[in-house]
Amino acid sequence: MVTWKNLDEAQAYKVLPTLKKVEVKTEMAGQSGAERVGKYCLPMAGGLSYNFAAKAVNDDILAALSKLAEEMQLGEKFEALYNGEVINTGEKRRVLHHLTRGQLGNDVVADGVNKRTFYEDQRKAAGEFAAKVHRGEIVNEKGETFTTVVQIGIGGSDLGPRAIYLALENWAKANGTLKMQARFISNVDPDDAASVLKSIDLPRSLFVLVSKSGTTLETLTNETFVKNALRAAGLDPAKHMLAVTSETSPLASSSDYLAAFFMDDYIGGRYSSSSCVGGAILSLAFGEEIFARFLAGAAEEDKLAKIADPLKNPDMLDALIGVYERNVLGYPTTAVLPYSQALNRFPAHLQQLDMESNGKSVNRFGQPVSYVTGPVIFGEPGTNGQHSFYQLLHQGTDIVPLQFVGFRANQAGMDDTIQGSTSQQKLSANVAAQIMAFACGKEDADPNKSFAGNRPSSIIIGEQLTPEALGALLAHFENKVMFQGFLWNLNSFDQEGVQLGKVLAKRVLAHETDGALRAYSDLLAI
Amino acid sequence: MVTWKNLDEAQAYKVLPTLKKVEVKTEMAGQSGAERVGKYCLPMAGGLSYNFAAKAVNDDILAALSKLAEEMQLGEKFEALYNGEVINTGEKRRVLHHLTRGQLGNDVVADGVNKRTFYEDQRKAAGEFAAKVHRGEIVNEKGETFTTVVQIGIGGSDLGPRAIYLALENWAKANGTLKMQARFISNVDPDDAASVLKSIDLPRSLFVLVSKSGTTLETLTNETFVKNALRAAGLDPAKHMLAVTSETSPLASSSDYLAAFFMDDYIGGRYSSSSCVGGAILSLAFGEEIFARFLAGAAEEDKLAKIADPLKNPDMLDALIGVYERNVLGYPTTAVLPYSQALNRFPAHLQQLDMESNGKSVNRFGQPVSYVTGPVIFGEPGTNGQHSFYQLLHQGTDIVPLQFVGFRANQAGMDDTIQGSTSQQKLSANVAAQIMAFACGKEDADPNKSFAGNRPSSIIIGEQLTPEALGALLAHFENKVMFQGFLWNLNSFDQEGVQLGKVLAKRVLAHETDGALRAYSDLLAI
Repeated sequence: MVTWKNLDEAQAYKVLPTLKKVEVKTEMAGQSGAERVGKYCLPMAGGLSYNFAAKAVNDDILAALSKLAEEMQLGEKFEALYNGEVINTGEKRRVLHHLTRGQLGNDVVADGVNKRTFYEDQRKAAGEFAAKVHRGEIVNEKGETFTTVVQIGIGGSDLGPRAIYLALENWAKANGTLKMQARFISNVDPDDAASVLKSIDLPRSLFVLVSKSGTTLETLTNETFVKNALRAAGLDPAKHMLAVTSETSPLASSSDYLAAFFMDDYIGGRYSSSSCVGGAILSLAFGEEIFARFLAGAAEEDKLAKIADPLKNPDMLDALIGVYERNVLGYPTTAVLPYSQALNRFPAHLQQLDMESNGKSVNRFGQPVSYVTGPVIFGEPGTNGQHSFYQLLHQGTDIVPLQFVGFRANQAGMDDTIQGSTSQQKLSANVAAQIMAFACGKEDADPNKSFAGNRPSSIIIGEQLTPEALGALLAHFENKVMFQGFLWNLNSFDQEGVQLGKVLAKRVLAHETDGALRAYSDLLAI
Repeated sequence: MVTWKNLDEAQAYKVLPTLKKVEVKTEMAGQSGAERVGKYCLPMAGGLSYNFAAKAVNDDILAALSKLAEEMQLGEKFEALYNGEVINTGEKRRVLHHLTRGQLGNDVVADGVNKRTFYEDQRKAAGEFAAKVHRGEIVNEKGETFTTVVQIGIGGSDLGPRAIYLALENWAKANGTLKMQARFISNVDPDDAASVLKSIDLPRSLFVLVSKSGTTLETLTNETFVKNALRAAGLDPAKHMLAVTSETSPLASSSDYLAAFFMDDYIGGRYSSSSCVGGAILSLAFGEEIFARFLAGAAEEDKLAKIADPLKNPDMLDALIGVYERNVLGYPTTAVLPYSQALNRFPAHLQQLDMESNGKSVNRFGQPVSYVTGPVIFGEPGTNGQHSFYQLLHQGTDIVPLQFVGFRANQAGMDDTIQGSTSQQKLSANVAAQIMAFACGKEDADPNKSFAGNRPSSIIIGEQLTPEALGALLAHFENKVMFQGFLWNLNSFDQEGVQLGKVLAKRVLAHETDGALRAYSDLLAI
């Protein structure tokens, strides 16, 4: 039986501020630094490893964080979650995204259905549909094969699948497994859909409409926008569209779609990449096998998240260190810095995952908490960021904890040796250099050229960004955010903060406003 | 004669914390809110207006901020800057980017040259080159016209021009002025260049190599990468490449380029979009006239930045309010939220502009400051962000000031009325609704559904995102960041914080490392 309690009720949490702070600068210098790099490293799935040598921790702090994990029952709470307890108490829902990629515990039966079987059946159905498209068994009005797939969705139906597609697009090209190009329409701004529609071969395009409820304003608007464009081109929308939705949504049994694949209320939008929300478009783009490899990487990482000892559990440890940085060291933001161009939209996905899950001020019982919760998350790929906002990270007045990601090999297999090193080596040399520059800094007689150091970072290192590695990376952050939600005693699986804006926007469109809202609406000529 | 002094030396700054704080929630409710929307609004160039009704200010605080502007001599410092004083004291350079788009004050003669004439000559040269390409007077080896232009550059040579190109691409398509498609290669990750090269018609592509110094590692590496690819395709790199650089750089007089256009040391990378760093690629993509219209918008905004009264100067006032939020109210981050898909990379450009300019801990004399300086900047387009990180903005434990941007009309001219409103109306209704939801919040019996409000925001509103509006928007933020640098007494025009990483990366590549740096290099197989 688990006990849900606030972070500041934990004895182990009260100990943390009393422990001597770690000076990263000193710890990472000389032989001590080399030893930390070897010692403070945990294996992850997909050939990845989580290296936290440059974080502001030592054995004492890690021991205290272990006690905190135990006292806050992180392992037990995860167990309750994957065994199907109603963890999303606000909406009275189970939280079952782990079941989309594996079985971690007991069978979970809900609504009379084994949920693992349900998700797996949906994955297979989407995979088989994709295979038929690839084999030319599902074709357009003229009997031509489809070459492009366009996802229509927003938030969790967009950011995760988009980040994953972009992360594997060049890998798939290099490995001969890119079956269809993918595009995404998300914004209600009509210029978004217009731009995508102009860039594709419309008669040879399939559209995947993704909305769990079947009521998302942006998505339904864009669906109609696209259907109008299809009709205007003399095409039959019903021959170009499929739906990913819940079985109870109005879209589920409509004849407007070639096919429908299902998730349910137990899969939150931002956790839905490994459900058929990601599965339909990714199977169409890359083939069912590649999507299965992605899921296998995620499932392996989930298994690691079950390890009781936080010092052997990379997802739990990352969560604990993050809470230490946020609540004890007082850092308000975190930067995600992948040294891989393919991961260029991965920070935007993590931004949603983290900020929408843990950007909350009341605990799971609706009581205000008296400590800070989820940080602001931002990031861009290295080395681009180095020539942009790293100035502030190195010499600004605030300290920003950093999460690097790096790989030993590139994806496309195209590289040149220029001035004695390959581009990949230059890329990797830069991430290694940055970690040390942030950690140790450098004194200079000119204070404007001095670097204070003591900027903590961790790095996830892999051989190559493969489907397995990407799955592991995604699951790592999902699990990290989940464990942090447990520590802050939040419900990480609802998002009541998005409701008020929706209500007010409807009022504006109905012209039922007064005061400042009316004044803004007039200025915007609505 | 201006006197440079620290923010906390200003008497007017000491007054600010003593003033009664404004409760946005109260001020923005009812009739008072409607009045503020009308009153707290300043015209900008390009048909834009800056509306700060939902900021945590009132007439008292604005009066105090005006005094601060006067005491800190913001107007005089700007005047010194555009008249050519050496404002970038660290690097002993003038700061002349305003001259790339207009003459705000005295003639500035440096190195025996009138700088306005010099920049204008370079703009015209790039424009004439572009016109020759468009007219088919400059063609490839087979006599074919060029259809694609690819910028090779990083940081300021990438983010600004990229954001601007994307902002105008669909507008240009709709207005029949898209002459060539543009692509960008920035990252040293070889997958970046490989991906771009695979997506274009190489024989019909021009490459613009942009590096002021001619020594940027990433850019030179990608240049060689591209040249190798051109040669491998049987093409002559010298017939496909042009350079944008300084006259003293090794690239300036090389026969490896079809043409070279010049900026100089008085144009910082992140302020170079209006120089030929932006001018070459944007003239090729859209034609010289469109780039000139963009510059005209920026020049008009610059003129507004000269207005002595901060309450009539949108750039200066935005700067003052930002410093009030950062230093008096204590908010560590700022979100930029354009309700325009075309501005999807504009926040990334502002991230560099702001964080690289003012992410500093020592003043312009090299002395440590005892107050916080530049905030973390992040953002994504609305409505996408609403379905992502807005949860934290509404209900998180930290307050994040918000900068909205919205337009009355879309760019592509494609729109449908769906459920009684167009997509553009839905988009605009959402931004109006969000401002009010953030400002006023909503009480609910269920604390999980309560919104505390008091989240301050401003909005820049325009008719349409045209070249003029975009120029004004860019100049607004450049000038805002400049004025904030004056307030914090920083040198906003150097970036010493990027140096240490470069030095260490070279050591890694030369295998001249030990300790932790060696250990990381080994892990990354360098």
